[in-house]
Amino acid sequence: MDKNKIIVFDTTLRDGEQSPGCSMNTDEKIKVALQLEKLGVDVIEAGFAAASPGDFDAVSQIAQIVKNSTICSLSRAIENDIKQAGLAVQKANKHRIHTFIATSPIHMQYKLKMTPDEVIKRAVRAVEYAKTFVEDVEFSCEDAGRSEISFLKEVMDAVINAGAKTINLPDTVGYRLPTELASMIKELSEYAKDRAIISVHNHNDLGLATANTLASVLNGARQIEVTINGLGERAGNSALEEAVMAIKVRKDIFGDLYTNINTPELYATSRLIATITGVEPQQNKAIVGKNAFAHESGIHQDGVLKHQETYEIMRPEDVGVIKDSTLILGKHSGRAAFRDKIVQLGFDKVSDDELNAAFERFKVLADKKKDITDDDVRMLITDEALNHDKIYELVGLQISDCSSGMPMAAVSIKYEDKIIKDAGLGDGTMDAIFKTIDRITGYSGELKDYKVISVSEGKDSLAKVTTRVSFENSQAFVGHGLSIDTMQATANAYIGALNSYLSQKNRLTKNCGHQV
Amino acid sequence: MDKNKIIVFDTTLRDGEQSPGCSMNTDEKIKVALQLEKLGVDVIEAGFAAASPGDFDAVSQIAQIVKNSTICSLSRAIENDIKQAGLAVQKANKHRIHTFIATSPIHMQYKLKMTPDEVIKRAVRAVEYAKTFVEDVEFSCEDAGRSEISFLKEVMDAVINAGAKTINLPDTVGYRLPTELASMIKELSEYAKDRAIISVHNHNDLGLATANTLASVLNGARQIEVTINGLGERAGNSALEEAVMAIKVRKDIFGDLYTNINTPELYATSRLIATITGVEPQQNKAIVGKNAFAHESGIHQDGVLKHQETYEIMRPEDVGVIKDSTLILGKHSGRAAFRDKIVQLGFDKVSDDELNAAFERFKVLADKKKDITDDDVRMLITDEALNHDKIYELVGLQISDCSSGMPMAAVSIKYEDKIIKDAGLGDGTMDAIFKTIDRITGYSGELKDYKVISVSEGKDSLAKVTTRVSFENSQAFVGHGLSIDTMQATANAYIGALNSYLSQKNRLTKNCGHQV
Repeated sequence: MDKNKIIVFDTTLRDGEQSPGCSMNTDEKIKVALQLEKLGVDVIEAGFAAASPGDFDAVSQIAQIVKNSTICSLSRAIENDIKQAGLAVQKANKHRIHTFIATSPIHMQYKLKMTPDEVIKRAVRAVEYAKTFVEDVEFSCEDAGRSEISFLKEVMDAVINAGAKTINLPDTVGYRLPTELASMIKELSEYAKDRAIISVHNHNDLGLATANTLASVLNGARQIEVTINGLGERAGNSALEEAVMAIKVRKDIFGDLYTNINTPELYATSRLIATITGVEPQQNKAIVGKNAFAHESGIHQDGVLKHQETYEIMRPEDVGVIKDSTLILGKHSGRAAFRDKIVQLGFDKVSDDELNAAFERFKVLADKKKDITDDDVRMLITDEALNHDKIYELVGLQISDCSSGMPMAAVSIKYEDKIIKDAGLGDGTMDAIFKTIDRITGYSGELKDYKVISVSEGKDSLAKVTTRVSFENSQAFVGHGLSIDTMQATANAYIGALNSYLSQKNRLTKNCGHQV
Repeated sequence: MDKNKIIVFDTTLRDGEQSPGCSMNTDEKIKVALQLEKLGVDVIEAGFAAASPGDFDAVSQIAQIVKNSTICSLSRAIENDIKQAGLAVQKANKHRIHTFIATSPIHMQYKLKMTPDEVIKRAVRAVEYAKTFVEDVEFSCEDAGRSEISFLKEVMDAVINAGAKTINLPDTVGYRLPTELASMIKELSEYAKDRAIISVHNHNDLGLATANTLASVLNGARQIEVTINGLGERAGNSALEEAVMAIKVRKDIFGDLYTNINTPELYATSRLIATITGVEPQQNKAIVGKNAFAHESGIHQDGVLKHQETYEIMRPEDVGVIKDSTLILGKHSGRAAFRDKIVQLGFDKVSDDELNAAFERFKVLADKKKDITDDDVRMLITDEALNHDKIYELVGLQISDCSSGMPMAAVSIKYEDKIIKDAGLGDGTMDAIFKTIDRITGYSGELKDYKVISVSEGKDSLAKVTTRVSFENSQAFVGHGLSIDTMQATANAYIGALNSYLSQKNRLTKNCGHQV
């Protein structure tokens, strides 16, 4: 084992997906997993297989498709959880089971209602059982941040003897300061010696997750559990992009320590996950925020022009942000220029069908909008890739609305080669569109969230609409719409959420006879 | 001086406002300053008076209105800057001038093109001149994070002798790790002894700003420069809410150190600034993000029900997040219940006019929407407060749009008691609305950003629209619209941006004969 390598364990698809508003369907999870592989992530925690048939399906699909990263499923220290995890990751090239139980006094007493001895026994049984499925077993001491060091040592001894290769010590509630974590990790990694890899998993409740991850790395941790954009329960997890870039930018401190992350893929990965979940990083988010490399004040602009390093400690291109892109597309650009731009933006695995469909939409857009920006192109191609399950398809939309009147929508939708048309009223234009779509499809959606952002500047900018809708009391499904006309984008996003729900339902009915 | 008090210096109105997309007009800045005063901020950096007539106006207005916090203006180490700063803060109850010059080799050589000796002379002259206006002078060594310690000591000696009371040591480019900052601040605060207060100002480029601020406090810094929601240049500044809550939650580490922040005002302050700037904290933002206190996974929900502290290290109400609010408003709620709710949400300074106007809108909303949530009420009252400059006012809106047709809007607007009506086409519905408004008002706005979010769940949720629009090549002005009808909200937001522009223009023409 390389003593200087920091193993990057990405849990965007598990801890990230677990956070409110971030649920993804199987197709979306596969797209994310492929991008994480391209980013160079060592271990992808693809889900919690026992949580639901949908989770199981996603983990096992990813296990069969991803080749270079280890595929891991989380499981409680419970026989059936471990079995589901083992079955789900079985076909992966490299696979891991990650099992856990809480070790802090407060969790053992109130949540588990178990004695420390019982906890150790359960942990050992879990690891032993997991070893019957895979060689590579990781064990987590949940709430390690508030556990007693002496007890953590006991647990470590027991689970290492049972065969665990990686011991994860999560700061589950985001409570610790970097100095505290540094001393805990130092003591426990010295205690583990070469018997296991020490891993950390930090939450960001006090805004300290990145600092805690870095302090741990400097004190012996060799695996970091992180997420893209810092997604995760509550205030989220340690952000992959921050920890990785800090290790790279501060080579003077981190010395020979390194990760395998291909940093110019960071921005594309962040955009993909923001688009799929509809959860945008704030514009002042470090590394991947819209403003991370922007200089507004005259003093800063002047400084950067005189010497880039006066105000920049890393170059935008190091993380895949393309500034001052020279190739601007317009209505006269051909398919070749469009394809070049797409490859330059990092979409090298786009299928011909997706490319053609996106190109057609590009031509329509270019007729209405003078300059097509990188962000426009990025959105066109992502939108095309995300909306390929066209069970219902919007054909026509007509709306009429006047203040203090009766907002009305007329909609025509294609379904199994038939065109269905109807009209309806609503309490507002959007409401009228949604209700008319419901009337046509027969599914009554419950809107959980609705967002519109403009992709670039100008009145003729593309509008990107994200809806989260629940059908038949399901979890919420995300739908995307992209158009120069916000109404059209809205209708497409709502129908997209329904298509996403139905394709997941069909897949599960086919694969395992379960409902969503 | 109390040795345990951490002075909270908020620079949301200066470094925060300086970040792309966060500019505010004078009225908005005054609202923010009053809320910062209520939050208990010790020093409000209200702007950079010499930057523009608008900045000067805002600083001097705030200086006259805010009573409890010290009002400060930034200024370069240049005579005219200092004079403008001095004049702007003159009428404040407590006032400060904050002057700065860079001290790092790279900034001195490439940006300033000055020798270290020249830098010291300039710094001393600046402090001496500032002292002719105010007693309380703060001096910043810009890019201290990359400056030589021995040179920082020389500069400190010189400016302290010239009368500076506070020495700020910013990590301007967000480069340092907490351990490095800890040792730098320890050495320099021991060197300063009782001669000056050591202050820190950390940027978040690597995601370490909060950790750096806390490490500095533990090593002698007694002033922290922070912003609400972590706004600021590039990846922003150290977030006020994170540093303050960490000091409070980890009392076991910080001992007798304390701030004067009234933490239950944190959430209201964050919401106000998000609404005014249109820059939303990401949902997984620590302390103030929408999900900061949400528990999605069954395991976590189960734990919290059994014992709150299993997964929560602070209570939502400690930062002003009201969960499970018992008083739900509906169409039968009266003015008294509405007023109670508003006070409970922290709006105790709402004028009767604002209350009445918001109540009228509440009744209209309650006719269409079953349950009015806290978020709905918060938005109604904030929107009312932000849109009081009704130079142009939307009276009626009628739209009609069909796919592959000609999107059309008819708009009627009240201006100086006259009603003006017109219609127009666009490349989409929004575009048609914007262009028709332009046709009526005669101002051609350039749309910089457009965003819609749903305030709560359900198809009949309120839509909150934020536009950023530039007129006559001005900076971008933010407009807000709130309605159950997204079209109506869009029209109001666009008109709001124009009103904001015009009221700022009128104010400046009146006060100082300048254009925006």
